[in-house]
Amino acid sequence: MPTQFDPPSGTRDFLAAEYEKREWAFGELRSVFRSYGFEPLQTPAFERIDVLLGKYGDEADKLVFKILRRGEHEASGEADLALRYDMTVPLARVAAAYGSQLPMPYKRYAIGPVWRADRPGKGRYREFTQCDVDTLGSSSPLADAEVLCAHHDAMARLGLTGFTILLNARQVLFGLLEVFGVPEELGENVLISLDKLDKLSPAEVISELTGRGLAAVRGAELVGAMTAPDATDRIRTALKGSDLGLAGLDQVDEVLNLVSGQIPAERIAFTPRMVRGLSYYTGPIWELAAAGVPGSIGSGGRYDHLIAQLGGPDMPGTGASIGIERVLMLASERAEAARGRIDVAVPVLAHDLAAQSFRLAGIARAAGLRTSVYLGSSGKLSKQLRWASDSGARWCLIYGSAEHAAGAVTVRDLASAEQRQLPLADLPDYLRNPAGTEDG
Amino acid sequence: MPTQFDPPSGTRDFLAAEYEKREWAFGELRSVFRSYGFEPLQTPAFERIDVLLGKYGDEADKLVFKILRRGEHEASGEADLALRYDMTVPLARVAAAYGSQLPMPYKRYAIGPVWRADRPGKGRYREFTQCDVDTLGSSSPLADAEVLCAHHDAMARLGLTGFTILLNARQVLFGLLEVFGVPEELGENVLISLDKLDKLSPAEVISELTGRGLAAVRGAELVGAMTAPDATDRIRTALKGSDLGLAGLDQVDEVLNLVSGQIPAERIAFTPRMVRGLSYYTGPIWELAAAGVPGSIGSGGRYDHLIAQLGGPDMPGTGASIGIERVLMLASERAEAARGRIDVAVPVLAHDLAAQSFRLAGIARAAGLRTSVYLGSSGKLSKQLRWASDSGARWCLIYGSAEHAAGAVTVRDLASAEQRQLPLADLPDYLRNPAGTEDG
Repeated sequence: MPTQFDPPSGTRDFLAAEYEKREWAFGELRSVFRSYGFEPLQTPAFERIDVLLGKYGDEADKLVFKILRRGEHEASGEADLALRYDMTVPLARVAAAYGSQLPMPYKRYAIGPVWRADRPGKGRYREFTQCDVDTLGSSSPLADAEVLCAHHDAMARLGLTGFTILLNARQVLFGLLEVFGVPEELGENVLISLDKLDKLSPAEVISELTGRGLAAVRGAELVGAMTAPDATDRIRTALKGSDLGLAGLDQVDEVLNLVSGQIPAERIAFTPRMVRGLSYYTGPIWELAAAGVPGSIGSGGRYDHLIAQLGGPDMPGTGASIGIERVLMLASERAEAARGRIDVAVPVLAHDLAAQSFRLAGIARAAGLRTSVYLGSSGKLSKQLRWASDSGARWCLIYGSAEHAAGAVTVRDLASAEQRQLPLADLPDYLRNPAGTEDG
Repeated sequence: MPTQFDPPSGTRDFLAAEYEKREWAFGELRSVFRSYGFEPLQTPAFERIDVLLGKYGDEADKLVFKILRRGEHEASGEADLALRYDMTVPLARVAAAYGSQLPMPYKRYAIGPVWRADRPGKGRYREFTQCDVDTLGSSSPLADAEVLCAHHDAMARLGLTGFTILLNARQVLFGLLEVFGVPEELGENVLISLDKLDKLSPAEVISELTGRGLAAVRGAELVGAMTAPDATDRIRTALKGSDLGLAGLDQVDEVLNLVSGQIPAERIAFTPRMVRGLSYYTGPIWELAAAGVPGSIGSGGRYDHLIAQLGGPDMPGTGASIGIERVLMLASERAEAARGRIDVAVPVLAHDLAAQSFRLAGIARAAGLRTSVYLGSSGKLSKQLRWASDSGARWCLIYGSAEHAAGAVTVRDLASAEQRQLPLADLPDYLRNPAGTEDG
């Protein structure tokens, strides 16, 4: 049951373990994108409200978090700013604002939170991280292939293996509508129904198509071709009857050719039934599916007019969006390799020895070890050793009156409980190479 | 003049160069805090409005960005959420929410944006990054010393050298008020005036003190002692007349003793005139001053009741806050060592050679080099070489029809314009060790 101390509905506090897992993943993603020459971009958390609203329709507008005007205008109840809803509207604004200051084509990635006032649910948050990689200003299929390879490499870098890239092109879909005789005015709705073939049975989709006004025989033919065991071959053959379809096939084959050798062949497949719901795609489209995960874990494609529709300059674009919250769940094993909180714990056995213990901690840190000094009020070694052990440390540096008299320090291995006394002067070398001394 | 495409007033877009400088600095700070065993904490961008308001007074409440209720409640013009104003209120909430799940003492750092509807100005933003490091649950002076050393090390890691740590303790200030005969009811106001001694002349401060109701002779004595060339000695002597003052001196000396050997002596000084405006401090306090920078570049101190005042559990605390926006300006030289955008540029000389060029880019990336393939529409080598050069690349991998026929690739050094042709099979080794081949 939520209490007054929980974070707001649909948001999360990330304590150390979860934060480090996420930060590790973001670091790996940045590294992959950098290796392709994509540049980082970070825009403010909020935009002027007119920049955000009206870009994705009324339903999306309802999900935007709006910020009240301030000062004397607060009482008006009006909003003048809003939290960003995605990374693409800010990209369009940046493309308009910086124009010639940006390298062209502009290859950028963005990793950061976005906010949507969706009903919170399992795996669905109101504050969640988006991770986008896009190229603006190039019509070349190489740009599509580059984004797709970066997308693939990012998933591989996070340790994901059981995923498949479903590849298609919008023109393939338009070609299909043509050769299967779908009336033009039904086209967009028919595609929306076909998109459900990964969730609904063929019969259910046929029934939905009929409900949308498509002749039953046409719907059955179309769905039959899309779901046959040799669907890909049948569709390839059928598309020869449409110029649009052939152009789409060419796009798919060009991308497949470009990425061969960089994306293992068994991980990518031409998938004619894959539609992508979003009508702004204009060329190749792809979706990443992971075994056991409903829906996609990422997607992308070419959108040659979107930036202009979002208020930016008219330039071609292609990009991918990684469903990082889902991916993080899949990548959890690799990320769990997080280390203990500290390497070295330093007890403090008497007030007049505190300064020396504090100095020992500094020496351990200088040797590259995460080190914490005891900050509690107990003077008992047994209690402080329990603290050391709880904190995940491997070593304790003990400095009591005996060590003080001898000009020495006792190093305790918390796993084996073995102790050895060293001259103080030897500690830095010992800490830099304890394995050589202990395990060697 | 701002245009519709600029980010909202007081916020910034971080393009690649600026972003990488900031990300470098944040990474260094994380690394220092980790080395002390501080854990990361990340809380949501917004909190429930009742968690935020009423914590720092009416003036602060006016600067909070408030978020409109959603759906049917939007028309009410009421806010139920607000963007975080600092990192300490969320810390108090987290301490209350997770209690025994947190290690105790709880040592955490937080680096992230906060939002304040201040009037934007030079170096003053409405969205800016705060960087805080705090220890909750320990009354030990070691905790103060640990935070202070981490604060110092963080500045040193960013390459700052010309900074001084002004150290004081609240009890020193209370002792001063006592021995200089300041009436108790004037105490807090007198401290606020003394705090201005780094900006105003002694005479101006004396006049302000008189205006606040302090006898002119008392004000002159107090300011005279604080600004004398031997101020520190005079104050040390004077404080012997007050138990509070002596306790404060003990705190200062204990911190100085603990940090000696880890903070160079010339970088830290007992500074009795340093007040820190914030009344919630209860023990040692410090401020970092940098030559040529007005105001402080960071500050910290012990605040044993603040967490309870902010709605959290009643536990002692000590912490530092780094003025990261100012620090970044000082650290700019070190951060400017950012590399060019890419290492290797790969022209595409003919459509039927594109796939091979794309593969060469993959080989360069696998060798650890940031690599970009030409995405434009020109087929001319000269134009593509200009692109390569503009993009900051060091090498070009050229694959034209001659190379295709020879099973080779031409590697061009963009600085020297030297070229050499290699068998394709030799490229991976060559890229891994070009220096050994070229410069060696």
